[in-house]
Amino acid sequence: MEKKVKVAVVGASGYSGEELVRLLLKHPYVELTAITSRANAGKSIGEVYPRFAKSELSFCNPEVAELAKLAEVAFLALPHGLATEYAIPLLKAGLKVLDISADFRLRSTAKYEEYYGAPHPAPELLKQAVYGQPERYRKALKHADLIACAGCYPTSSILPSAPLLAHKLVSTEGIVICSASGVTGAGRKVAENYIFPECNESFKAYGVVGHRHVPEIEQELAAAAGVPEIKLNFIPHLAPFNRGINSTLLFNLMPGVTLDDVTNVYHEAYADEPFVMVLPPKKCADTKYVTMTNMCQIGYNIDPRTDKLIVTSVIDNLTKGASGQAIQCMNIRLGLPETAGL
Amino acid sequence: MEKKVKVAVVGASGYSGEELVRLLLKHPYVELTAITSRANAGKSIGEVYPRFAKSELSFCNPEVAELAKLAEVAFLALPHGLATEYAIPLLKAGLKVLDISADFRLRSTAKYEEYYGAPHPAPELLKQAVYGQPERYRKALKHADLIACAGCYPTSSILPSAPLLAHKLVSTEGIVICSASGVTGAGRKVAENYIFPECNESFKAYGVVGHRHVPEIEQELAAAAGVPEIKLNFIPHLAPFNRGINSTLLFNLMPGVTLDDVTNVYHEAYADEPFVMVLPPKKCADTKYVTMTNMCQIGYNIDPRTDKLIVTSVIDNLTKGASGQAIQCMNIRLGLPETAGL
Amino acid sequence: MEKKVKVAVVGASGYSGEELVRLLLKHPYVELTAITSRANAGKSIGEVYPRFAKSELSFCNPEVAELAKLAEVAFLALPHGLATEYAIPLLKAGLKVLDISADFRLRSTAKYEEYYGAPHPAPELLKQAVYGQPERYRKALKHADLIACAGCYPTSSILPSAPLLAHKLVSTEGIVICSASGVTGAGRKVAENYIFPECNESFKAYGVVGHRHVPEIEQELAAAAGVPEIKLNFIPHLAPFNRGINSTLLFNLMPGVTLDDVTNVYHEAYADEPFVMVLPPKKCADTKYVTMTNMCQIGYNIDPRTDKLIVTSVIDNLTKGASGQAIQCMNIRLGLPETAGL
Amino acid sequence: MEKKVKVAVVGASGYSGEELVRLLLKHPYVELTAITSRANAGKSIGEVYPRFAKSELSFCNPEVAELAKLAEVAFLALPHGLATEYAIPLLKAGLKVLDISADFRLRSTAKYEEYYGAPHPAPELLKQAVYGQPERYRKALKHADLIACAGCYPTSSILPSAPLLAHKLVSTEGIVICSASGVTGAGRKVAENYIFPECNESFKAYGVVGHRHVPEIEQELAAAAGVPEIKLNFIPHLAPFNRGINSTLLFNLMPGVTLDDVTNVYHEAYADEPFVMVLPPKKCADTKYVTMTNMCQIGYNIDPRTDKLIVTSVIDNLTKGASGQAIQCMNIRLGLPETAGL
Repeated sequence: MEKKVKVAVVGASGYSGEELVRLLLKHPYVELTAITSRANAGKSIGEVYPRFAKSELSFCNPEVAELAKLAEVAFLALPHGLATEYAIPLLKAGLKVLDISADFRLRSTAKYEEYYGAPHPAPELLKQAVYGQPERYRKALKHADLIACAGCYPTSSILPSAPLLAHKLVSTEGIVICSASGVTGAGRKVAENYIFPECNESFKAYGVVGHRHVPEIEQELAAAAGVPEIKLNFIPHLAPFNRGINSTLLFNLMPGVTLDDVTNVYHEAYADEPFVMVLPPKKCADTKYVTMTNMCQIGYNIDPRTDKLIVTSVIDNLTKGASGQAIQCMNIRLGLPETAGL
Repeated sequence: MEKKVKVAVVGASGYSGEELVRLLLKHPYVELTAITSRANAGKSIGEVYPRFAKSELSFCNPEVAELAKLAEVAFLALPHGLATEYAIPLLKAGLKVLDISADFRLRSTAKYEEYYGAPHPAPELLKQAVYGQPERYRKALKHADLIACAGCYPTSSILPSAPLLAHKLVSTEGIVICSASGVTGAGRKVAENYIFPECNESFKAYGVVGHRHVPEIEQELAAAAGVPEIKLNFIPHLAPFNRGINSTLLFNLMPGVTLDDVTNVYHEAYADEPFVMVLPPKKCADTKYVTMTNMCQIGYNIDPRTDKLIVTSVIDNLTKGASGQAIQCMNIRLGLPETAGL
Repeated sequence: MEKKVKVAVVGASGYSGEELVRLLLKHPYVELTAITSRANAGKSIGEVYPRFAKSELSFCNPEVAELAKLAEVAFLALPHGLATEYAIPLLKAGLKVLDISADFRLRSTAKYEEYYGAPHPAPELLKQAVYGQPERYRKALKHADLIACAGCYPTSSILPSAPLLAHKLVSTEGIVICSASGVTGAGRKVAENYIFPECNESFKAYGVVGHRHVPEIEQELAAAAGVPEIKLNFIPHLAPFNRGINSTLLFNLMPGVTLDDVTNVYHEAYADEPFVMVLPPKKCADTKYVTMTNMCQIGYNIDPRTDKLIVTSVIDNLTKGASGQAIQCMNIRLGLPETAGL
Repeated sequence: MEKKVKVAVVGASGYSGEELVRLLLKHPYVELTAITSRANAGKSIGEVYPRFAKSELSFCNPEVAELAKLAEVAFLALPHGLATEYAIPLLKAGLKVLDISADFRLRSTAKYEEYYGAPHPAPELLKQAVYGQPERYRKALKHADLIACAGCYPTSSILPSAPLLAHKLVSTEGIVICSASGVTGAGRKVAENYIFPECNESFKAYGVVGHRHVPEIEQELAAAAGVPEIKLNFIPHLAPFNRGINSTLLFNLMPGVTLDDVTNVYHEAYADEPFVMVLPPKKCADTKYVTMTNMCQIGYNIDPRTDKLIVTSVIDNLTKGASGQAIQCMNIRLGLPETAGL
């Protein structure tokens, strides 16, 4: 592998952007050629992130045309809506685009409008977008020029659910997902709710009805189950730690399903996956085991009194839940070793 | 009120014991006459808890007979099983006993044996024990000599559930309770799992099947609903903060029930309660609002897509979840103002 | 004590203001009649601080004239400069004013201008202002109408230093104070530096040269030592916890001074103080022992190799470092029991 | 580079051992062939550290003779004393030994006995031991078979001090070092002091006189200054975060020394060092910028009022302060790229 791939991170000032920079600076097959930021344009990376001060990169704010000359691959770590504004011309200019925003995750423009409060900004691109979750769409990702990287809560929810639904071990009815995220999950958002003394020694639910990740999770679980629609409850919580998501999922077991059945299905699905780890039965996952890794770890147990399967699933929200998974998708698209740089 | 009530804390070395001491030292109608500890007997309170160094109390380890001379009321902050060993003679000696352990919470000795792995140590006492949750048993508490103070997770679960079940707004089927507790909930337990670097930046479920608080919650919810039995799922999590529990509860709404119906039932139940606070509809509770208080705060919302009522409920696990509620019970039993010292 | 004192908190939206409200709502001799806030005027206290939802107070934003009718005592929890704008008319209207800002702490207007970058806003008031640290100025506080409550870092520095300097156990030269504060010390400041993920898992010095608390500490230490001037180094750090300050102080011991000498001086100074606690020799103070109390705890040890006396001192920055100490001052001024409400 | 170097970690159950495993598993030129632990022998690495479950390593507890067959390089992550018991036979068997304990750091056996309370266990080995701090001993490390890896607090203290002393910018008298460490600095120690609720929301000094790192820091600072002895004050603190050390150092400036002089000396010393980063003048270092990296970051400023140079220095205590620096030393010894695996 002589020539390195030139890569740009568009919107490198948020936590996902920073995580992309952290990983890409050490990626053996990548040259990070541009990191953009309106607010920080002109500043060296060390000024903004002293952690990276040994790098000589500076933030820039180039025209798209210029950006297209600098890079072959662009990661968009931008707010939804704005991501589309960059995706359209970058795709036209021939770049591979990996979008970390929500713009191309939902296949239904109606759902997009319902949850994001505006018409979809580029419905014509939806057909070519591939959902960026390698364990489910590896084949399609090999040829995708627009990759809609999976969301953080959805990744932690879909990976443990999909094999169970695909093998009909659990019902599509009555699924409950209780998740807790570290505060980087809110992005680098400067608001009173997120200052340290308000988050520290605090634990709370939020967005318990109508969270924007609901349709994304439902779409992918329905696809896995092979049914037109699933309706579930997803309840996110904010917890006082930096990185990580734990999702605890409750499923109604189909009659006669045993713990061994679950073990078998999970092992078949994930034994060869480099970034999914199935724990021994009855163990619970712990966010700390995956912090700053691209792993998803899954635990499971059956409550025979209620015939529920209880699954716990953890990821680092910035890595497997965003930037790491995006790089995993890029590796697949470019034919690189899937674990390179991760 | 001239004469102060003499009170002992038996087992004052754990977090609940320490919290009892903190509150009782400032209680206007109480004189704390004895704090016992095997490990710390002979030490001044300031040696063990520098926070209380201005007090002149010392830890002791008296015979029960001696203890009975020192106090009229005894709080037992002991492991289950051991609590009974103290409760029996102290009751005989005429003391009022407030037990913070689990020994007298379950009315069914079979359930006790199932969940605690041993026959109940004093089934003959169960009849006189009153469950220590003032909002539900205030009347009986006025005459109880043995008060089985409610557990922490159960308190955070029962207070928001009972009025809903009593008024048949929700089904007794399919109840799911996802809770997260700060680490004091594990007690002052010295084990590798609980050292700082193992808990900090970590979030995990545990005891997802068969947790000992399940039968306690089910017993009280069935009583509230007026049914012989309820089976539910209770999933506790350990989160990196010191004090507090958040319980997020999902109920199947009965047909036609509206948010206003829920509001009305909650207000009827709790408007006059000094230690329960119902938030405006659609708000979520936050543990930080109740830290170091005896309050339970309740939020609620309806998901019309799944016909679920989603309730969040927060307490301080050491105060309303243990020692504060025990003092509230004592106040009731002694005819003191219910909020005294709280 | 029949009639309660009517008290107002001017600027109740910050952390010091909130702490004043927390303490004053339970103060047995006080009626909290007004809490002001420009941003929150009109809102009930429960909307802003759900913790206080059982209170019926609302935020207001009254003219000073109106405020003067509502209260006999006003606490100013305002930014420096703005505090003076309120202090002048409130004093004229006959109120006792307890200012938590820095406006009246420095006796030298030159120092004020040097460190705050503007001429002192009301030099004529400086003469009547009494520095609000009861252990040092109790007598003067009994008659003070304008009380300049001591700062948080200064309180944690002056209490352990003053007796040592007054008794000439240590040199006035070469004093070094290394402090660490929890993040509430920065106030409820909404800035990127203070969001949770930036503070959590982070520890750093700041303002290592020229911090505004330097002249305040130097002024009081010089006064204690009876010398015209002291120059010292004060190095604050920001640490990932909510409440508390630890100050570690290094002094050059005067020849022949022993640990017993230090013990004797501290005990003479503080044995009868309700809110200062001297630890046994060689122990170190810990912020957690004073959280949510009005205590200052002091530890000390001698390094014979370098002839240094090393002192550690902890307070809760919002209580003894701000609002609790202000209430202690008010109690003294009004002839109430000094510990009332604390 | 065809053949990988076989490496063993002796004592892989502590935090330094775990960090060695984390880094060595990804080291491009290393094969981790053995991880030993008495307590965990026989268990797979995934059982003990689910984070590494994709690895197939298991803990073992081999005889030294067997260990010598498995590896060419041994890292000792053992308590002091025990490390020597392994070092002697492993050196005899021809292995390169990198000792993370304190056994071979002090050149003076008298100091060892004074601070560790026992005679040095192998004084004859001291001559061949090289102090494991690449920035100061790179040349000697190239040929060292026994490397005494520098301690965590010492690394954070020596790197910022040595160039200043070598160039006589600061006095050797009156040096004060105030440090704060995250709780992993205490090792994986299961004791009441270290459980989460005791450390969280707590900040305290400890070991303020006679800490074992004092002679190590003094030895290296004297060597840098070219003087026989330096006596200084080192005050460690425990702070509620997982990883990182901040050291704040106060030096007496030599007459006439300016901030530019300091800048020049630091840049000359460290501009080409891969793992030391000098911040622009007047900035303070922050532990979070170096978490999970092998970097040391240094900030500095002058207080003209007291003629002090104030330096802040941060490292990750487990990486640059222990395991990362040990691997850096190994890379140098083996002629590998110094940054490999880091």
